[in-house]
Amino acid sequence: MRVAVLGTGIVGRTLGSALLSNGHEVRIGSRTAGNPAAVAWAEQIGGPASEGTFADAAGFGEIVINATAGSGSLEALQMAGYEQLAGKVLIDVANPLDISRGMPPTLTVCNDDSLGEQLQRALPDVRVVKTLNSVTAAVMVDPSLVGGAHTMFVAGDDATAKEQTIELLQELGWPARSIIDLGDITAARGMEMYMALWLRLWGAAGTAVLNIEVRSAGTPAG
Amino acid sequence: MRVAVLGTGIVGRTLGSALLSNGHEVRIGSRTAGNPAAVAWAEQIGGPASEGTFADAAGFGEIVINATAGSGSLEALQMAGYEQLAGKVLIDVANPLDISRGMPPTLTVCNDDSLGEQLQRALPDVRVVKTLNSVTAAVMVDPSLVGGAHTMFVAGDDATAKEQTIELLQELGWPARSIIDLGDITAARGMEMYMALWLRLWGAAGTAVLNIEVRSAGTPAG
Repeated sequence: MRVAVLGTGIVGRTLGSALLSNGHEVRIGSRTAGNPAAVAWAEQIGGPASEGTFADAAGFGEIVINATAGSGSLEALQMAGYEQLAGKVLIDVANPLDISRGMPPTLTVCNDDSLGEQLQRALPDVRVVKTLNSVTAAVMVDPSLVGGAHTMFVAGDDATAKEQTIELLQELGWPARSIIDLGDITAARGMEMYMALWLRLWGAAGTAVLNIEVRSAGTPAG
Repeated sequence: MRVAVLGTGIVGRTLGSALLSNGHEVRIGSRTAGNPAAVAWAEQIGGPASEGTFADAAGFGEIVINATAGSGSLEALQMAGYEQLAGKVLIDVANPLDISRGMPPTLTVCNDDSLGEQLQRALPDVRVVKTLNSVTAAVMVDPSLVGGAHTMFVAGDDATAKEQTIELLQELGWPARSIIDLGDITAARGMEMYMALWLRLWGAAGTAVLNIEVRSAGTPAG
């Protein structure tokens, strides 16, 4: 499948490489074509890896992943071109972190709204699925780095888009039983607000290679 | 030990009963003395169980637990009397849920502040420890209801107060290894913002008897 990855930071490049390993063609997009990090990434891998503008990538991808910084995601998608995105699945892995006010970061949107919802409202013809924002890039593409069973969430309004996303998650190593569908895109609020806890967990654990497992009265022990 | 429990809802009564079972004397406090739920609770148990106003309870307790609705906690503590609380450990288990705007609830405070911090600022001579807000009442006092290992958080500015709180948590059945100290009281932001995710987990699991286990690269599998 042709996948567009918007964002050439560590998340975008890590996801891009993992998708290539799974046999997909990947184009990563940035604000300008020829972004040095993107060019180096594409040259190192060659073949089915390419880079370009957000619009180049969006036009290329059958599925589009938003791996831009959350504070710039709306602008990035506008640059990608709404008409090029229409009808596609947009997997939103971004967090709306505001680091402009120092550490720890706060969120640019939360409580009664979320970045996932903002994207879905801005692009009503796009099928937004929120996922992967709850773990660091290395864990996104290799959940086995965290010991034992742990959970990945998906949320979105379109059932088929969530199914396609879950297939991609399974390719990345997330077992079907580890994936919890939290319902419609408003669940992105909780997924993004979890960042405030995650940042403290990172501090307490001394590593970002962490995640949570959800257990309920019905969960077998182990 | 004499424990004051502020709040006579399901959380307050559940915690009160569990503390009594562990040999503590408990007085639960409400806005007015003679609150029917509190009277029924105290009469049913008798002996070391008593009820009264917030101020009655606060004067009685060596340790004070805030189990009021988060939206009313600041007022409840004012009614309890700051001078009676000075120097004491205040275990804050409340969530600042706003149900006035319908479901799902939003938070009355979040992102760059928290209820835990508001309480600590209002009562600078009190040693506030945030804990237990991340699970439903039944799980607070019987973590074994959730299958397998799972995590409880503590946060607060006073190390000794956190140690005392952790002792109480262990009495309630939380193994020492399940308890993560997230640092100072600003970690209450993440603990409270997790509610937005918890509410969706409740919906997905179909039961409120749930919790998360934190796993990191260093966590043994199992």
